[in-house]
Amino acid sequence: MVRFDVMTIDLQSRGPIVECVPNFSEGKRPEIVRSIANEIGSVPGIRVLDLHIDVDHNRSVVTFIGKPEAVLEAALAGVRAASRLIDMSHHKGAHPRIGATDVVPLIPVSKIEMDECITLARKLAERIWNELEIPTYLYGYAALRDDRKRLERIRLEGFEQIRDLVAIDSDSHPDFGGPQLHPKAGATIVGARDPLIAFNIDLKSSDLKMAREIASAIRERNSGLKGLKALGIYLESRSCVQISTNITRTDLVSPYRVFEKVKEEASKRGIDILRGELVGLMPLESIISSAREAIHLDSLDAKRIIDLNL
Amino acid sequence: MVRFDVMTIDLQSRGPIVECVPNFSEGKRPEIVRSIANEIGSVPGIRVLDLHIDVDHNRSVVTFIGKPEAVLEAALAGVRAASRLIDMSHHKGAHPRIGATDVVPLIPVSKIEMDECITLARKLAERIWNELEIPTYLYGYAALRDDRKRLERIRLEGFEQIRDLVAIDSDSHPDFGGPQLHPKAGATIVGARDPLIAFNIDLKSSDLKMAREIASAIRERNSGLKGLKALGIYLESRSCVQISTNITRTDLVSPYRVFEKVKEEASKRGIDILRGELVGLMPLESIISSAREAIHLDSLDAKRIIDLNL
Repeated sequence: MVRFDVMTIDLQSRGPIVECVPNFSEGKRPEIVRSIANEIGSVPGIRVLDLHIDVDHNRSVVTFIGKPEAVLEAALAGVRAASRLIDMSHHKGAHPRIGATDVVPLIPVSKIEMDECITLARKLAERIWNELEIPTYLYGYAALRDDRKRLERIRLEGFEQIRDLVAIDSDSHPDFGGPQLHPKAGATIVGARDPLIAFNIDLKSSDLKMAREIASAIRERNSGLKGLKALGIYLESRSCVQISTNITRTDLVSPYRVFEKVKEEASKRGIDILRGELVGLMPLESIISSAREAIHLDSLDAKRIIDLNL
Repeated sequence: MVRFDVMTIDLQSRGPIVECVPNFSEGKRPEIVRSIANEIGSVPGIRVLDLHIDVDHNRSVVTFIGKPEAVLEAALAGVRAASRLIDMSHHKGAHPRIGATDVVPLIPVSKIEMDECITLARKLAERIWNELEIPTYLYGYAALRDDRKRLERIRLEGFEQIRDLVAIDSDSHPDFGGPQLHPKAGATIVGARDPLIAFNIDLKSSDLKMAREIASAIRERNSGLKGLKALGIYLESRSCVQISTNITRTDLVSPYRVFEKVKEEASKRGIDILRGELVGLMPLESIISSAREAIHLDSLDAKRIIDLNL
């Protein structure tokens, strides 16, 4: 019996694994978010790894993994629950968002190619429209139009703007369904992308202009760190500003590098750092490269970690 | 066939694993050290994980793991090879050492208790004497006398001193064999201990007095970091001084904390840091705690690393 268990577990762990990190437009009522996460986690074969509730953005991020088919069902369950529990016509939040479920990224993490995640994203987008009557857009590698590869280009200023826009501009129509948005659930953006790290740094300051300057100094777009997106925002609940970043090239930039760069820019302005914040998970390689750089240990890699050699 | 392989591999990985990090008194002739490591690695079931050759100390450290019985045979094979290839009557090196194989620590790493490592160490010490005629001392948890728990208390100033001492002082006699040391191989200290991290930091200075001051300021013995041993030494080959540390309480002190403490003390004296150096391996938890502290991410733990959740 033991032998059979061992074999089963092992064969299971050999299958393809997709990560999914849907963003929901609710961060002030934790019970609502937990209820959505429970719907996701109750799909067989799904493991919810993290639940990040952001009261300032009134937004939450669920991180879960599973086999492709299970992830499809779980994402659909999450979108269904969110459409029942969140009403966009009453939602307020600083972060741009177009639906109760704003965005559903699918990420290949193990033994699966990006192509399969693209196919999965398109299937999911179609089913969200067919089964829940929520119109969907496709982004990232799953985009059907070049001008929809970037999330920001689809989302613009969010729900209110897109709701008005679809009535007058056919170019803004969803890829599946619509053209009108769902009155309560809005629309959902589904896509496939590479892994990224959502890493934020809180500063001991409430100066939003300064936070935006720092964000601008470190991001790739303004000749900062390659593969880094950054925004300066104000966090009401913590009475401080935050440099909110996405590390899209985890092979080039470590969280430590971003931290040091923000520290350098903040220090120039006489500002201290309060804390780091990780949304979701990060790859082991980024932990190792952070430690490698922080303690000047050029030769550090996974081979030098005893636990990973057992 | 595949199924059978999978099962075998998995059942193997469930067995007890011991780590062994013998220190050999040779660091100037890499081919000798590699030859010893090859003897160790050719024992079935043994994996050599690291080989650290230190030209300044004229000393090398091999890190290997395996099941208890295989580790016993591999350690014995290493001691045998060293006794054939290294002659203590001609050996010179700054680091105190009493034999061709100076010390053989056994560390329980997975599914094994310290008690079993103690038994294994005593068996090994006895066999080294019986089969190779090299007298042995037992230290750490395997010590037979309280005053031999600490390595330094056995080793004193090394081979030359102990060789003379055993002739006049019965209290210094080996636990197995002797009392005279082996004319070429000296004596070997065998023991069982908790995991430790051997982490060194090179400074941009050749001031040995200052390096010793820094080592003294950071070590536990002088009210520094709990669970930290530290020495200041001069490295001829690199023309710089080094703070050589052992982190014996990896649960209390991260390599990053040691690095920052050395940086702070060095900076007070106007000295920069050149690089970190890891001898052997370190536990995953110490990599995570280093990253956690370096990027102020209090909530970081293994659950937030995607690869460890697959």
